[in-house]
Order: sequence, then C-alpha cells, then structure tokens
Amino acid sequence: MKVITFGELLLRLSAPGYTKLFQRDALEASFCGGEANVAVSLANFGIESVFVSRMPNSSVGKAGAHSLDYFNVDTSKIVYGSGRMGLYYLEKGASQRPSNIIYDREYSSFALAQRSDFDWEHIFDGADWFHWTGIDPALSDEMADICDDACRYAKEKGITVSCDLNYRGKLWSSKKAQTVMKPLMKYVDLCICNEEDAEKVLGIKSENTVVEEGKLNKSDYSNIAKEICDLYGCKYVATTLRKSYSASCNGWGAMLFDAKESQSYFSREYDIWIVDRVGGGDSFSAAMIYTFSTSKTCQEKIEFATAASCLKQTIEGDYNRVSVNDVEDLVHSSGNGRVRR
Amino acid sequence: MKVITFGELLLRLSAPGYTKLFQRDALEASFCGGEANVAVSLANFGIESVFVSRMPNSSVGKAGAHSLDYFNVDTSKIVYGSGRMGLYYLEKGASQRPSNIIYDREYSSFALAQRSDFDWEHIFDGADWFHWTGIDPALSDEMADICDDACRYAKEKGITVSCDLNYRGKLWSSKKAQTVMKPLMKYVDLCICNEEDAEKVLGIKSENTVVEEGKLNKSDYSNIAKEICDLYGCKYVATTLRKSYSASCNGWGAMLFDAKESQSYFSREYDIWIVDRVGGGDSFSAAMIYTFSTSKTCQEKIEFATAASCLKQTIEGDYNRVSVNDVEDLVHSSGNGRVRR
Amino acid sequence: MKVITFGELLLRLSAPGYTKLFQRDALEASFCGGEANVAVSLANFGIESVFVSRMPNSSVGKAGAHSLDYFNVDTSKIVYGSGRMGLYYLEKGASQRPSNIIYDREYSSFALAQRSDFDWEHIFDGADWFHWTGIDPALSDEMADICDDACRYAKEKGITVSCDLNYRGKLWSSKKAQTVMKPLMKYVDLCICNEEDAEKVLGIKSENTVVEEGKLNKSDYSNIAKEICDLYGCKYVATTLRKSYSASCNGWGAMLFDAKESQSYFSREYDIWIVDRVGGGDSFSAAMIYTFSTSKTCQEKIEFATAASCLKQTIEGDYNRVSVNDVEDLVHSSGNGRVRR
Amino acid sequence: MKVITFGELLLRLSAPGYTKLFQRDALEASFCGGEANVAVSLANFGIESVFVSRMPNSSVGKAGAHSLDYFNVDTSKIVYGSGRMGLYYLEKGASQRPSNIIYDREYSSFALAQRSDFDWEHIFDGADWFHWTGIDPALSDEMADICDDACRYAKEKGITVSCDLNYRGKLWSSKKAQTVMKPLMKYVDLCICNEEDAEKVLGIKSENTVVEEGKLNKSDYSNIAKEICDLYGCKYVATTLRKSYSASCNGWGAMLFDAKESQSYFSREYDIWIVDRVGGGDSFSAAMIYTFSTSKTCQEKIEFATAASCLKQTIEGDYNRVSVNDVEDLVHSSGNGRVRR
Amino acid sequence: MKVITFGELLLRLSAPGYTKLFQRDALEASFCGGEANVAVSLANFGIESVFVSRMPNSSVGKAGAHSLDYFNVDTSKIVYGSGRMGLYYLEKGASQRPSNIIYDREYSSFALAQRSDFDWEHIFDGADWFHWTGIDPALSDEMADICDDACRYAKEKGITVSCDLNYRGKLWSSKKAQTVMKPLMKYVDLCICNEEDAEKVLGIKSENTVVEEGKLNKSDYSNIAKEICDLYGCKYVATTLRKSYSASCNGWGAMLFDAKESQSYFSREYDIWIVDRVGGGDSFSAAMIYTFSTSKTCQEKIEFATAASCLKQTIEGDYNRVSVNDVEDLVHSSGNGRVRR
Amino acid sequence: MKVITFGELLLRLSAPGYTKLFQRDALEASFCGGEANVAVSLANFGIESVFVSRMPNSSVGKAGAHSLDYFNVDTSKIVYGSGRMGLYYLEKGASQRPSNIIYDREYSSFALAQRSDFDWEHIFDGADWFHWTGIDPALSDEMADICDDACRYAKEKGITVSCDLNYRGKLWSSKKAQTVMKPLMKYVDLCICNEEDAEKVLGIKSENTVVEEGKLNKSDYSNIAKEICDLYGCKYVATTLRKSYSASCNGWGAMLFDAKESQSYFSREYDIWIVDRVGGGDSFSAAMIYTFSTSKTCQEKIEFATAASCLKQTIEGDYNRVSVNDVEDLVHSSGNGRVRR
Repeated sequence: MKVITFGELLLRLSAPGYTKLFQRDALEASFCGGEANVAVSLANFGIESVFVSRMPNSSVGKAGAHSLDYFNVDTSKIVYGSGRMGLYYLEKGASQRPSNIIYDREYSSFALAQRSDFDWEHIFDGADWFHWTGIDPALSDEMADICDDACRYAKEKGITVSCDLNYRGKLWSSKKAQTVMKPLMKYVDLCICNEEDAEKVLGIKSENTVVEEGKLNKSDYSNIAKEICDLYGCKYVATTLRKSYSASCNGWGAMLFDAKESQSYFSREYDIWIVDRVGGGDSFSAAMIYTFSTSKTCQEKIEFATAASCLKQTIEGDYNRVSVNDVEDLVHSSGNGRVRR
Repeated sequence: MKVITFGELLLRLSAPGYTKLFQRDALEASFCGGEANVAVSLANFGIESVFVSRMPNSSVGKAGAHSLDYFNVDTSKIVYGSGRMGLYYLEKGASQRPSNIIYDREYSSFALAQRSDFDWEHIFDGADWFHWTGIDPALSDEMADICDDACRYAKEKGITVSCDLNYRGKLWSSKKAQTVMKPLMKYVDLCICNEEDAEKVLGIKSENTVVEEGKLNKSDYSNIAKEICDLYGCKYVATTLRKSYSASCNGWGAMLFDAKESQSYFSREYDIWIVDRVGGGDSFSAAMIYTFSTSKTCQEKIEFATAASCLKQTIEGDYNRVSVNDVEDLVHSSGNGRVRR
Repeated sequence: MKVITFGELLLRLSAPGYTKLFQRDALEASFCGGEANVAVSLANFGIESVFVSRMPNSSVGKAGAHSLDYFNVDTSKIVYGSGRMGLYYLEKGASQRPSNIIYDREYSSFALAQRSDFDWEHIFDGADWFHWTGIDPALSDEMADICDDACRYAKEKGITVSCDLNYRGKLWSSKKAQTVMKPLMKYVDLCICNEEDAEKVLGIKSENTVVEEGKLNKSDYSNIAKEICDLYGCKYVATTLRKSYSASCNGWGAMLFDAKESQSYFSREYDIWIVDRVGGGDSFSAAMIYTFSTSKTCQEKIEFATAASCLKQTIEGDYNRVSVNDVEDLVHSSGNGRVRR
Repeated sequence: MKVITFGELLLRLSAPGYTKLFQRDALEASFCGGEANVAVSLANFGIESVFVSRMPNSSVGKAGAHSLDYFNVDTSKIVYGSGRMGLYYLEKGASQRPSNIIYDREYSSFALAQRSDFDWEHIFDGADWFHWTGIDPALSDEMADICDDACRYAKEKGITVSCDLNYRGKLWSSKKAQTVMKPLMKYVDLCICNEEDAEKVLGIKSENTVVEEGKLNKSDYSNIAKEICDLYGCKYVATTLRKSYSASCNGWGAMLFDAKESQSYFSREYDIWIVDRVGGGDSFSAAMIYTFSTSKTCQEKIEFATAASCLKQTIEGDYNRVSVNDVEDLVHSSGNGRVRR
Repeated sequence: MKVITFGELLLRLSAPGYTKLFQRDALEASFCGGEANVAVSLANFGIESVFVSRMPNSSVGKAGAHSLDYFNVDTSKIVYGSGRMGLYYLEKGASQRPSNIIYDREYSSFALAQRSDFDWEHIFDGADWFHWTGIDPALSDEMADICDDACRYAKEKGITVSCDLNYRGKLWSSKKAQTVMKPLMKYVDLCICNEEDAEKVLGIKSENTVVEEGKLNKSDYSNIAKEICDLYGCKYVATTLRKSYSASCNGWGAMLFDAKESQSYFSREYDIWIVDRVGGGDSFSAAMIYTFSTSKTCQEKIEFATAASCLKQTIEGDYNRVSVNDVEDLVHSSGNGRVRR
Repeated sequence: MKVITFGELLLRLSAPGYTKLFQRDALEASFCGGEANVAVSLANFGIESVFVSRMPNSSVGKAGAHSLDYFNVDTSKIVYGSGRMGLYYLEKGASQRPSNIIYDREYSSFALAQRSDFDWEHIFDGADWFHWTGIDPALSDEMADICDDACRYAKEKGITVSCDLNYRGKLWSSKKAQTVMKPLMKYVDLCICNEEDAEKVLGIKSENTVVEEGKLNKSDYSNIAKEICDLYGCKYVATTLRKSYSASCNGWGAMLFDAKESQSYFSREYDIWIVDRVGGGDSFSAAMIYTFSTSKTCQEKIEFATAASCLKQTIEGDYNRVSVNDVEDLVHSSGNGRVRR
C-alpha cells in the first residue's frame, strides 16, 4: 500500500525533562507535525509512505526533510519555497501540571502555499490512500482549496481518503471550522476524531459524556460515529478514548465504527504512565490506516491501533518509533513490560 | 503589597536524575533557600518582593543575587561581606528510596551576620509584610537577635509578620529551638508549620497523628492551630498535610485556621507524582502570603496555596515558576493535566 | 567474610532516558554484569570482595577494572588476555513498553577463557565464600569445566558456594542448560533462582503459578525450593518474587527456604516505581550472601535482601550503590521516602 | 549615567559545539540581540541600563525579559503585544568554515511595532544617553519613524545619542539603508561603524582597504571617520578593526576618532582564539558608551572598549559577562591568561 | 552520476570532548566507516549514492542503515544477516596527545560476508562508478574475492572504479596487503592513496619524504603516482598531503596526477585547526569522485576535493555534512571564516 | 617504590566549556588537589601510591576517596572526621581571558586536622618516598607541625622526601610562608618549585627573569636551584618553565638541577594548546618522582617529567590519566599527534 500524507512539518522545541520553558538554556529540537507523524509511523510499519508539504528553502527546511528521510519516508514530492519553518515550544506537564504548547507557526512555508504549488497528478502517481487532517484547512482559505483539490483528485482515482478532524481552537473558531470542513467531509472514507472534534468541527454533540470529568459513555461514541457516517457517507469512524487522570497517567482505548455493519468495536483499555503524549493521536491514525493493508478484522484493527498509540506515549518525541512486531507483541501480551533478553 | 523576606540563599548541588551523588561527574547547580524560594514565588505572583540577606562578596555571591534578579526580586537590600556561600548536596529519592540532603552551610556569610549589618528602617521602607523562618535563628544566637530586631521593628510599623517554623534537627535541638523561638512568636501574625514543627519548636503535640504512618487527623490539626493562636496571639495558622506514600508519590493538602472565627478550612487533596518536592512548603507559604493581597475567603486562600504548592512539586528546582493564572487554572479544574493547545 | 565472585564484566550502552536506541546520538556507558554487580554490592556492604574474570588487555578492559576498583572490589585476580569486551545495548522500557536488551558478547575475553587461565589455589586464598551464576557455563563448554574446577576446589577447602541459576534463553537452550548445570548443583549451598530458572535449568516446574499473568503462589515456591534441596543437597534456596504490573511499576518480594528447618520465609512486599530494574536480582544475591556474615535470622535475612534489591531498582545503573545503613533504614521504616535532612 | 537602549530581543538557537545545525537533537537557547547585548554589557559595568522594546505577550516573551532582568537591566519600559519572538539559528564556524546565521525574525512583535507603542517622554525620564542601531529602521518604515521620534525627543532633552550603523544586507539594500539612515545621522553624537557599514549605510568608501583580504589601512579609517563627522556633525566615530585569519582566530583592534581634536586613537591589537564572536561588536559599543561615564582619555577609552570586546569573544553566548575590573585587568596586563588563584 | 560504494558500516563510540575513554559515563555514538563516509559525502553533493554492505539483522543494524537514509543514501542494496555490528572506540587527541582508536570489528556481519551474499548484476544496475577501499579485502580472504567479483563485473560493464588504498596495519601486514591488492589494482581507474599506502600496499617507496618529520617533497609524490599508473594502468592518482604539526593543527593539501598528460596538479594548502580529523581522507575521496561528474579541470578537481576535506575536519563526526556550495565558497574565498549573515 | 603523599582532597566545581560560572545551571564535579593529583599520577605509572589525608565522614568524603580508589591509590590510611569537604569553583580561561579559581576550602576536615590524627609509624610502613607540598602548612599552624612530624619521621627511617613549594598567596603571606617553610626545608631531598615559589617561600630571587613578560633566563634558574641546594641541602631541584602566551597556548619546559654534579638539565620545550592546565605542575612532580624508581639519567628524568605534564594539559580534569607508555611515546616522537590506529 502506498499512502500520501499531506500537511505541515514543524520544529518542536521542548524544555528538557520537567523544567519550564527557558529554565535551562537548552531546548530539545525535533521535527514533527500531525501529518508527518502519521507518515513516519506508516514507514515504520513497512508501508510506502510519501509526505507532501511545502517547506522553507533553507538548511532548516532541508534538515526537516532529512528527519523524514531517516525513516525512509519519501520526501521527493515536497515543494520548497518562501516562508519560514513553523515551530512550537513545548513544556511537558507532570501530575496536575498540564503540558503547554506555544505555537509559532504563522507565515510558515506551508501556510503560505498556493494551489499551484501542488501537482496532484504527479503526487498521487501509484497511490492507494490519501491522509490529511483538519489542521491543514485551518491554516488558510487557500489551503482549504488545496485540500479540496487533493481530495477531489483522490476520489476520482479511487484512492481511499482518511481525515483526522483534529480541531485546534487556536487556529480557527468552531464556526469557521464547520463552514470549511463540512463540504470536505464527502470525500472522507475513514474519519478519525474524538468527541471534541465531532462537536467543534461537525457540530455533532454527545449528550452525556463530559470530557473534562473523564466520563466516557460507550453508546454515545457509537451514536456520534453513526451520525457522521449517515451525514457524510464515511465508511469508518475511528475514535480514541483518553481518560486524563493526570498529566502523568492516562487511560487509553479506542473505538472503530463500521458503517456497513453499523457496528462499533471497542479496544482493550490501557493505563499509561505517560512519557510523551504528543503524537499519540497521530500514531493511532497511522496504525489504523496500516491495518487496511492487512486482513485484520475490525476488532483486530482497533486493538492494533490502540496498542500502537499506547506504545508511542511511552517514547520521547512525536514520532512513533515502533515496528509492527512491537505492536503485535503488546496486542498479544498483558503489557506487563518484562525485559526482553 | 510589598513583602520583605529575610533568610539565607544557598547553592543547591543536585545529582542528575535518579543517580546517587557523584555517580555522574556533574552536579545540577541552582540557588535556593527556604526564604529565597518564598521571595521568588511572590515575585512570580506579581507581588513587590524584597529579599534581605548577607551574602559573600564574590562572583558566587553575585551569581546568587542574579538568580533572584531574574525573577524581579528586589536584591538591592542584600548586604555583601565575608564568609562563604552555604550549600547543600541533594540526592533525589524515588519510590522507597528517600531524598537525601547533605548540608554544608556552616561559616556562610549569612550565618556570620551581625546585628549591625541590617538597617531595618531602610529595609522596611514602604513594606506591608515581613516573612522569616525558623531556620534563621537556628543559625546563630546573633541571628536570633537579628530576627528579634526585625520583628520588633516590623510590629512597631504595623507590618504583618509571618513565620514558617521550619524545624531542622540538623541545625538545633528541639530544646534550643523552643528557648529561642517561643519569645519570638509574639510577633507572628501568620504562623506556618506542620505538626512536627509545632511539637519540636513550640512543644505542642497532637495526640493521635503519627506522621510516619501517614495517618492524619483533621481535628488534631485544628486543635494544635488553636493552641498556637491562644498561646501566642497569632491570627492565622497554616499547615500543610503531606501523606508520604513514597518518595515518588505524595498526598498533599493543607489547612488554614482563622483565630478570629476559631475556624479551620481544609483544602482539596491532591495525589502528586513528585518531580521535585524540595521547596514545596516554601511555595505554600508564598502563596498563602499572596492571598492576603487579594479578597479571597479563607477557603479560597487555602485552595490557592495548596494548588500552588502542588504545582511546585511537579517542576524541577526549588523555585516555584508558576503564575497566578496557572494556580487558578488548577484550583478551578480537575487537575487532569490535559495539554493546553 | 571474603567473597570470591566469578563472571564476566560487560559494557552497558544505554539509550538516554526513555528514548529508543540511537534516537539520540549518545549512549550512557557503564560497566556491569550479573556477577560484577554482586561483587560491587558486597563491597558496598563492607565485605572483602574479590572479582575474578578474564578481560581484554586494552584501555577498555582496564577502564572496566577501574570501575570495580572505584568500589574497592579487589581486581588483582583478574586475568587479561585476547578477545574483546562483551557489551549489551539497553533500551529502558516504560509503562507497556518493555525494556529491550541486545547482547553483543560473543568472542569476549571471558568467553574465550581457558581452564589454565585461573589458578584457583591462588584465587581462593583466604576466601570464605564463592559465588557464580548460570550465565558462566552458558558461555562455553570450557567455561562449564572452569566452573566445575572452581566449585570442586572451593568445596574441598570448605568454602561456601552460592549460585544464581540466571537462565538466559539467548545463551543456551533449556536442554543444554540442564545437561550442564545439574551436575554442578551438587556444589551449591545457597541456590538463588526464580521460578523460570527452576523450570528451565533444573526441570522443576510449579503447578499453578503463571508468571506472565503475575499470579504468584506461595506454596508453589516452597515446594520448588524443597525439591531443589532434596535433589541437590542445597542448604538454602532464595527466590525473588516479581510481579510485573508494567515496565514502570513492579511488585517485589522474596522467599528464603531453609532446608534444615524445611521452612520458608517470605519478605514484606514492595510496590516499586522502577528507575532501573537491571541488576535487581544481582543486588538480591549480594544482600543475601551478606546476611550470612551477620547473625540475622532467616526472616531478617530475607527482609534485608528484599529491601536491598528494592532500593537498587530506584537507582540508575546496574550497580547497587547503597550501604548497609540505607538497607536497614528501609527494613525498619515504612518506605515512605521522606526527605532526610 | 542612565542609558536607554532601543531594539529587538531575539532568541538564539545554536547548534552545540562545532556541529552543523540539527546534527544533534538539541539547540542551545539564549536571548540576545545587538541592542540587548549593549544593555546587558552596560548593566555589567554598573551603568543604569534600560532596554526598550516591543515583545510578544507570552511566556516566551516573558522569559526573554527575565534574561535581561538577570543582569539588572531595567525592563519595565518594554511593551508587550502581538507578534512572535524573532529568532535566529546559529552554526558556529571553525577554522576555514564560517559561522552561519539563519534569521527567522519576520513578523516579530518588534517588527510590528507602531509609533504609538512608545511614550518617549516616559521612557527618557532621567536618561543621559540613548543608543540605537541601524538594524532598527531596517525592520520597517514605521520603525524608521519610531527611531526618528526617539532621536528627536532625545536631542531636545540634551540626551547624547549613539548609533551603531550595523549594516545587514539580509534586511535591506544599501540604497534603502542610505535613504533612511542619512536623515537620521544628524542626531548621532557617537557613530559606531566598521568600514563596510560606512560604505553601505553612508556611501563613504575607503580607497585602499580590502576587507576580504584583511588589509587594514589606518589612515583610511581616519579619513572615513573624519568625513562622517564633517557630513553629519558627529562628535566621535568609533570603529572596530577585525582581521579574520580564520573562523577560529581573529586580530582585533579599534579606533576612536575625536572630531573636536580631529584626532584618531588606535588601540593595542589582540590576536584572539575565538570562543564565540557573535556580540563582539555590541560589547565594543557598550564599553565605548561606558567610558563616557568616566574621566578616561580618548586613548584610554579605545583601549577599554577593545579589551572589553576582546574578552567577550572568549566567552560563550552573545552577552558580555565581564566586569569593569576584568576589563581593566586586561588593559593593564599582557593578556597572557595566567590563572587567578 | 550513480555511484556504488562498498564497505563496512561501523558504530563509532567517542569519549566526549577532550576526555579519555570512560572518564565520563557517556559515549557519543554515530555510525560511520571509510566507505560509508564516501557514500554520505556523495549524497550531500547531490550524487545518486548507493551503499552496499552486509549488516546485522537487528535494531542496531537498522539504526545504522537509517543513519545513511537520513542523507538520502540508497540503502536498499544492503544485505542483512548474522554477525555483529563492528565498532570502534575513539579518544580525540589534542596538541601533543594523539587521537587513539581501539577497533572492535572482528566477527562483524560485514567481515563474515560470503560471495553469494552480493548480486552484482542487481547492485550495479544503472551505475556509473564503483568505489571501494583497501580496508575491504583486509577483512577476510572471502572479502578479497568479493572485491574481485565486484571489480570484474564493473569493468565488464564499463563502470569506472576507484579505490582508496587505505592501509591499516592493525588489519593486515604489508606483505599480505601486497599479495592481495596488487592483482586487484588492474581494475582501478582512480587510485587514492597517501605515501604510506603506496609503500605498504604497493611496495612503492619515495626516496626523500619522511612523513613523521612532516617533510613533503612534491616531486616525490609525482614520481610515486606516475609509477602506480605505469604499473597498473590507473588513469588518475590522487594523494592527500597532511602535515601533522600537532593533533590540533594540521597542514592540508593534495595532488592529482593525470596519467594521460603525465602531469601533477597541487592544490592550495590549508592550515586547519582540527575539530575532528577522522573521515578527512574519505571526504577527499568523495569530493574527488564528485568532480568527475562535472566539467572541472584537473586543477579545479584537486582544489574542490582539498577544500571539501578541509571543511570536513572542522565539523564533529565522520560524515562530511557540507554542500557543493559550501565547498565552492571556500575554493573561491580566502577561508577567513567571516560570519555569513 | 611505595610513595606516601600527604595533602587535601578538594571538590572541583567547574563551569562547563568556556562559560562563566553559573552561566549554565550545571557544574562539572571532580575531586582533585595538588597532592591527590600526584598520588593518582603515580598510581597510573604503576607506583604503589598511598594518599594520606583527613576527610569528612560523609557520603561526600567517601565519594572523594572512591575517586582515588578508581586509580588504585591506597586510601586505607585516610582519616575521617569532622569538618567539611573543601572545594573550589573553576572558570576555564581562553585566549586573553584568564582562568579563575574561587576557593571555598576553609574549615575543611583537612584544615581542622590535629597532630594526633596521624600515626606516622603506621602510615610510613614499607614506604620509600614521602611527598608533600607548601599548601599543607599554609592551612594551619597545626598542619605545619604535622608536616614537621611527618618529615622528621621519614628522615629517621631513610625515606626520601620531596616537596613542591607551591606558593599560594590566598592562603598565606610570603613572610609567613618563609617563617614556616624554611625550617622544614632541611628535610627535603627533591625540591620542586618555580621561580615565584622560590622568591615567595624561600626569599631567593632571580635577577633577570620577569615571569609576567614570559622572559625566562636559563642561567637564572640554575643559580636559584643551586642556592636552594646550598642553603638547605636538597639533592635535586626541579623547576617547570611555563611561558604564558595566552590562556589557550603556553610554552612548557622544565629544568632539573643535580646538586652533586652541580649541573642543570633542561628539557625540550613544547608549545601546548591548552585543554586544562590545572594540575599541570602536579603531574610534573609525580612524573619526576616516578623517574627515581627507574634508571633514567637526569636528562631522561626531566624529559619524562616534562612530557608527562605536557600531556596532562591536553586532558580535561586535574588528574593525569596517562600511562608510562603514553609519556615515553611523546618523549620519543615529535609530538605531531598522528592518530593511533
């Protein structure tokens, strides 16, 4: 399977350990981004993974592309041009102290992209799957048009489309998000979202669940997923179910809704001692996409994707550096973490 | 509100991570001290904060003062002179292994201070509040006299006085502490202490609580606080309630006793996954003092101080680097640590 | 008491923090090894500790010996020769992600050792105790003969022999292990093993316990220990009881079986937040050996050894850097980790 | 003397040691900027130093201000608002490999500043000196107007004005620079520049010196300085004379031209083994300004400024962390670097 | 141009800074190797670069391949199998103290390779150039046969062959080297060597030059090169000319001999302040190969290759991380290291 | 040969790289001290080396002793008691910026030592040589008496005595030094000093040499040495000759004067690019002492000691981590620093 992922690569600058930003005079530097994280995960699962973006024509931009080359992500379709490397500062939370992200991504090369920058015929050559997220069109109206271009082209060619709704209140309002995203939903075969995304991006609200309080209601999730499929014709909706006990410990599970069967599949649930939760959702998306290249059942799909994204959160950095074997080992074991020797 | 804090600045030399001292050939170096920690916290809460001390006239002493300047603590009242920079070595505990502190603070510039070093009229100019701790008079008899000078002057000028009893068995005996501290208690408006302090410094013992076993009895705490107020005329007693499950996890709450109402207010309790517990009590003192600059009720005061000191323990280093907003966010949320983005 | 420990010193190359191997461009480097860990622990307990090995005649080998000299382990009986320094790469697990060890120890100086390399008369001069592990004979047939030489000599001289069965599936098969180890068991006074070792090395299987599921059955353990003593004439069997909840949290206890009394002694159990579990078993062996130099009862012995090995797992690195006092403090306290100051 | 310095604070992200950018996954992070460097140097010389800027209203902006508070620079006149923290990536050169700077400073809070942001009457209260640089007006036309506002106000109040021409080809063309800067020169009492600045910013070209070839002609420098003073009424021109032998070794000297006497004063010349050359020119400006608060002769002024900026280049980071004593020690010694003990 | 490079990838473990090995408890870890260094350099120059090797089928081996993927080196022709990752320990010298390398490369996957491991028809598909070094056949007799296989196949297909003689006394004797290498020389179009290589590998000795004393005689070098071409039919001989003043400072130049013209071309000479000299020769080979994809004259070729390898020695690590532009900048400048901003 | 060295062990806290103290929030931590450095060097040369001191009875003191155990220095004669671990802060100089040392060694366990602490009969058992330095008696009058005790005992037993005069102006005045040291000189067989020591400690002044200016006059040195031998009966005087060009580059040579022959021997001179010069003189003393255990001629002695101390200055830390072979390699080579591989 060949997957095209479209989005922005960012530079992540993290305060070391559990310090506050600039408490120390060093920042950990790595490249990442919701869509790039998916591309890397897929490559690590052995999928032919292509990352499409627009990046600054500088040694910073080149270093970003090399960070993907490292994982054998195909970066030959990246366009280089004006604009800066978007970045974010990260302060890792602990216990009652939340992680804090300060974005500095305006005027980035990606945000400044034009429709003419992307030759979708060339990009989609040989592709089986197209993945994008709700962050893309939030960056500019032009970018919303670009997403429309890409999705339309993909559908014409019979390429499967997945989208992680990924609502970011710092990028756009719920109202704007709905205006832009609803028309794009018709292209989406696999919709990935959590409850907040469904409400803010599609206006679909559960009745009982209160995320803040960590109360998760299984039937609510099924209802939301069903409604999405009914309204927009999606074939699948995949939802992660995070229970935030604290910044250091989370419950983690997920659900896959199969529209054809009108059936929900819930994964086993993990209590995770968090090493780095950023990128958890992206690793879930990637693993879910991966399962469509295998003959897994829906239950197996959701178990694989949940285990993969559980493991991501035990590793430092946004990228999920685990293999299919690592994930299968967790799926088929108790997750008791005994040393392998 | 302008707060004068009086005490010693120390150099903290910590073994990195969870290593033993000198297991690695580097030490993390930061400046701190029970009273300096309070001064920094107050400055971070937007309070006009003045730190008064005597420090070595060397580049080490200057660097110490700069570490306070960084937070906009007013260091212009610090006196420089002979003597060394006191320091301590810290080995951070984990699980069943306790943190270990080795003091090397004898013959420090502060311990060698003379009464004539401090011009209290000049120091207290415009001040509203004076904070000191039981560590100060433990360092020398002269220092006990200096504390008496300061307190007396403060009371004459109508400046509120707070004291954290802060008993340190390595500095003086309980007997000596009682001899020195009891006469100083008459100046104290807000007394901050835990149960051990009350017993060792004031000879007031609870009947039922056994700290070692982590059993905490609420009415005991109220009784102790009431007795302190009755004996010494304090207006408030604030007490932290730590349950040491292990070096890695503590229960954390607090109580404020209002003598006028003869009423105790207990905070919500947090289970903290500890990043760095040193300075936790100091951040509580600072936050408690801060609340007197606002129109908070007693219950709000104790919630704010407890939340502030909870957050401190999730950050590396002695200083509490959080803002009023950070604390209010925790007070008004579940403390589930969701990422802010 | 003078203890001779025989085994291989390895170089451990660990990925920093919770990164995957080579995610960062640095490796933490320390020397260690099942038997060397025992020798260091014993030296830290004030025991005259001699480490016997064969090591590469290079600055790498010399640095390895110096890492033992640091703890006052007697390295004068080490033989230097051809071959390389064996090493292993370690990736520290977290939560559901297991630690991963990649061995690169073939063709090491130790694995290439010949019987003629060791002059046991010289080595055992003044010795009271000899400790070796099942890793030794797994390395080569020659090494199995060397172990036989050493044990035979020790028994002749009335030196107590202890052996940690320490089964390593990557080094030999269960079948081969049984062929080699069973004849060597007759020399062993104190046998240290866990359930897996008993099954794989001696073919003694418990009926009910399922390690993977974390179910531990106390009577099973007693039965296994009794069987070992009955079959091979061991005087004591000591067993650690680890419950792997996750890579970050383990239950930890132990049992000592006294053949003469035909009685099992179970220790108190600790829930450990793991800093570094590698070397935990070795620190247990060392502490158990140490207790035979004191007048402790069986219950005291097993409490001491369990507490010592609990503390090890809260420190970075393979070596247990705690003193007898540190261990006694834990034995006699609740393990609540209060700061010592 | 009270000095007001006006300019932008930047975040500097440096590759560690002599690595290329992103060769390691960490960046050294410090705040700096041509004008901020001057403000810090002045504070370290005991001058009352005020830094005026517009900075982002975020924890990044606040951390930047704290980095100046550390040195007791007065940051109370800084305005906070929209926009980002400008930054630059630095790769430190060595031998034949030049240092490389990649700017990412567009759309910064400072670059977006409006005339109405600055209340010069309030800012200049009690000030004796105003320092700005040619980087300021290069950032926007509005900023050029702001510089005009500031200079005009300063001159009206009899405040001395210094300007470091500081031509940056990446910010504006020589043509634009001349159009903007020439009208501003009438306010400048002390003009700091090197030969390239004089040519690019003022169109004044020396006849013989070829910077690239490291040929420096003393009379040329005098002529240029004289022409600047004649044309614009400057009282002093100060010029650094750098001979770039390699990225690791530079010759360093300077000249001060006194217009009243029409006399040039050349400093002693240092061969510097470069630790970090960024900020060298700024430390020269600061030291030169400082000398006007003393009774030094012109020769003493130029020796002090050259020695101060020589020392800066032997310390890591942009800020010059030396004291007046450190500089005087070098002025009065051979610079042989004997240990002080 | 598509270049196939054949050799071993090693793990380099370096003591940090100027410490001795194991003075600190960390090692810098990077992958490298004489031939891999060439492959990376070529990729950085925009050449289609394929690295062929045999590597361990483990996460260590995979990480090694990823380190090449990072630079877009084609690693798809690498064979994975048994054996270990060869490695070396490096202690960086300074001043009079030489760098020290301790190899631990025996029994590596590459050294254990069989002729049947490599399908040269598949490997050479579309290739223009084949590069190998004298280290390859030094590892085993089988490897010498493999080199013969590869060279023979390359010549048949009209692929240009280059070889860096690269004599390593720790791997084989001069006598053995001559026996093996002389018959392979007939395949070599471009021979890269220094004087020691010529003597030890080919038995061709200069008369006057004494390397130890740093005396280099230009005509000697020409004579040696001519003799090589005459004897073995090479078209070009390229030689680096290093003057070791100390471990910290070297003179660096090179010569290219063109057999057709019977003419030697000497480059400009650089005095380099050494950051990391390991890999200097490899970066020279790569740059020399690169020049054959351009229309450079012989003089331009040797200037480019010398400048490229000069720059390498100013960067940490074995890999040369510079671009064609970086090299051209040095070729056309004085190498004075002025900041680029 | 068995050498007893007597002195203080200090903790050295160094600012990393070329930063100023506390510019970063970490300090490099190592143990050292003029006499301990000698003991370590001797152990590295294979000499039986005993270090005698009084150290704090704490985990800090124990870690200090372990740092010597690492090198197989015999620490069994160290006395533990009250007092603190003396320490110093080090800021490494570069180019024109001198290294700066800030001592904090008052009230150390060593400075508080009493005559009764040391049982010289026990300490000197089997000893051949006794080494002490002028720092010892500078610490207290009691320590001067202790030195007298030790020297007297040594002479009675025919043990050779060496002393490094090591004048430290921060510890005592020249006048006091002369009063104390002159009577002790009668015990000294090998006197190690530089010109400043001779003048300050013994009142012997050269006529022409001006250290500050780096002018060294060979005959002056001979005259001073001769005068010392004539006055005090020393058999040898060894003098290091440092030319401080800058903090980064020094000329380094030495002289040995043989009183019996009345002959001076000057070593070859090295231009050293300094990595860490602290401990240079101590490594010279140790190497000089070592040569008396061999059959080297005076010229060979001084060449060995100079080369050894040259190498020390190319390694980080106070301790000289080189072997006899390393030194001999430099003595017999050009010191051109070619890689050993």
